[in-house]
Amino acid sequence: MRKVSNEMPIGIFDSGVGGLTVMKEIMKLLPEEDILYIGDTARVPYGTRSPETVSRYSLENARFLMSKGIKVLVVACNTSSAVSLALLREKFPVSVIGVVEPGARAAVERSILKRIAVIGTETTIKTGSYERAIREIDNSIEVSGIACPLFVPIIEEGWLEGDVVNLTVEKYLSSIRYNNVDTLVLGCTHYPMIKNVIEKFVQLPLIDSAVETAKEVKSVLEKKDILCKSKGEVSRNFFVSDSPEKFAYVGEKFLGHKILNILKIELGG
Amino acid sequence: MRKVSNEMPIGIFDSGVGGLTVMKEIMKLLPEEDILYIGDTARVPYGTRSPETVSRYSLENARFLMSKGIKVLVVACNTSSAVSLALLREKFPVSVIGVVEPGARAAVERSILKRIAVIGTETTIKTGSYERAIREIDNSIEVSGIACPLFVPIIEEGWLEGDVVNLTVEKYLSSIRYNNVDTLVLGCTHYPMIKNVIEKFVQLPLIDSAVETAKEVKSVLEKKDILCKSKGEVSRNFFVSDSPEKFAYVGEKFLGHKILNILKIELGG
Repeated sequence: MRKVSNEMPIGIFDSGVGGLTVMKEIMKLLPEEDILYIGDTARVPYGTRSPETVSRYSLENARFLMSKGIKVLVVACNTSSAVSLALLREKFPVSVIGVVEPGARAAVERSILKRIAVIGTETTIKTGSYERAIREIDNSIEVSGIACPLFVPIIEEGWLEGDVVNLTVEKYLSSIRYNNVDTLVLGCTHYPMIKNVIEKFVQLPLIDSAVETAKEVKSVLEKKDILCKSKGEVSRNFFVSDSPEKFAYVGEKFLGHKILNILKIELGG
Repeated sequence: MRKVSNEMPIGIFDSGVGGLTVMKEIMKLLPEEDILYIGDTARVPYGTRSPETVSRYSLENARFLMSKGIKVLVVACNTSSAVSLALLREKFPVSVIGVVEPGARAAVERSILKRIAVIGTETTIKTGSYERAIREIDNSIEVSGIACPLFVPIIEEGWLEGDVVNLTVEKYLSSIRYNNVDTLVLGCTHYPMIKNVIEKFVQLPLIDSAVETAKEVKSVLEKKDILCKSKGEVSRNFFVSDSPEKFAYVGEKFLGHKILNILKIELGG
């Protein structure tokens, strides 16, 4: 196992393109850092799979990134963060940062009425991971979870505005309006792409886990004194388990940058 | 390799629950036949994966069914039928029936204006498999393909009627209205679930591949003289690679029957 050093890249994995919203925030906050990103596009979506399967996939992704030498592992997938973070922390000798804890912490800081709603994929909501993370910080907070399984396919179709996304937001989120909730957590890395639509409908402050996770990454690198010292050229490399062209095409909108340097890899199996 | 006999079950595979619409039609037409069904729910959806990956998954599914002893293999998944039928026919010594050819044949018989539209997942449309199958029968027919990637998640969410599905049908299918098309092929096994919505909007005769495939299965069993002779109890068994509870819950609506006898299996890997 290589010793962790400041020149090493940050490793990020997600089931697909969603984690690119996290990478985007990390790039904003830490523009000098090298980054390795895995999109496990052959096995996307994780959100509808069983916890055991998600954990197995997460281990395989993490093992691949570790083999390349990374200084911190970012689990940019809510489903993986929800079910496999403890396992990854046990198995690997680097800091492992999920998207659930930073989002939960920010929500607690924000909520005054102590009523928080979380939206996410089926598995994220079913596992109750945000609820647990929030209650660990403040046991008196009421948390309601709402699964919104259609948001991801609608976002990946690129229908970021218009009737279909508006109506779907309305169908999933109208209950929030009558619940005295004062803070809404976007518990899926895809959702920042339709942040405006959601915000307009719920009229509440939103917690964007991508933003909060990037802050957490920065803070961990600072604490461990392994921030990258400026060194000129920055390298960002992408690995996908299927369809690199599609990843580049769809992912570009998520990352806000052209996606170059994509390599197709075999994971697991 | 066991010799094919009339008591053996029919083997069916799909990436998930969609193929159950095919199984439903087979059960209607051939109520005495035993059936083994694989839903590869750990790796669903196939429609967004590369042809190589889909072929690998198809082989693994077929191998599993063959190991149980089946008399005919039904590839109840449009994506698999589109990309891996020739390979399966080469590898296995039973009749292999896909959903593309029967649907294509029925469409050709139906169309008078010789303008057919096909709707399906991204991969099914991109591979042009229906177009090819239709043109092989009649080269003078014009075929237009429309990818409708949101239909599957909307159907699996159970939103089979209402604004969201109506609007989505409208968005994907309004071009058909101005194209002199006289026949529409449902090129995805999920789509029969929203047949009424589609029919109402396009006002055209629809070809349901599930129905056509069941007819083809019956005809092949008759020709080979391996129809099941009535033998009392009928057994239907389901294998899934992930989340049996969810498969049972969602699948019930597709099959129109309670789903019992589900076993979780490992495929590939």
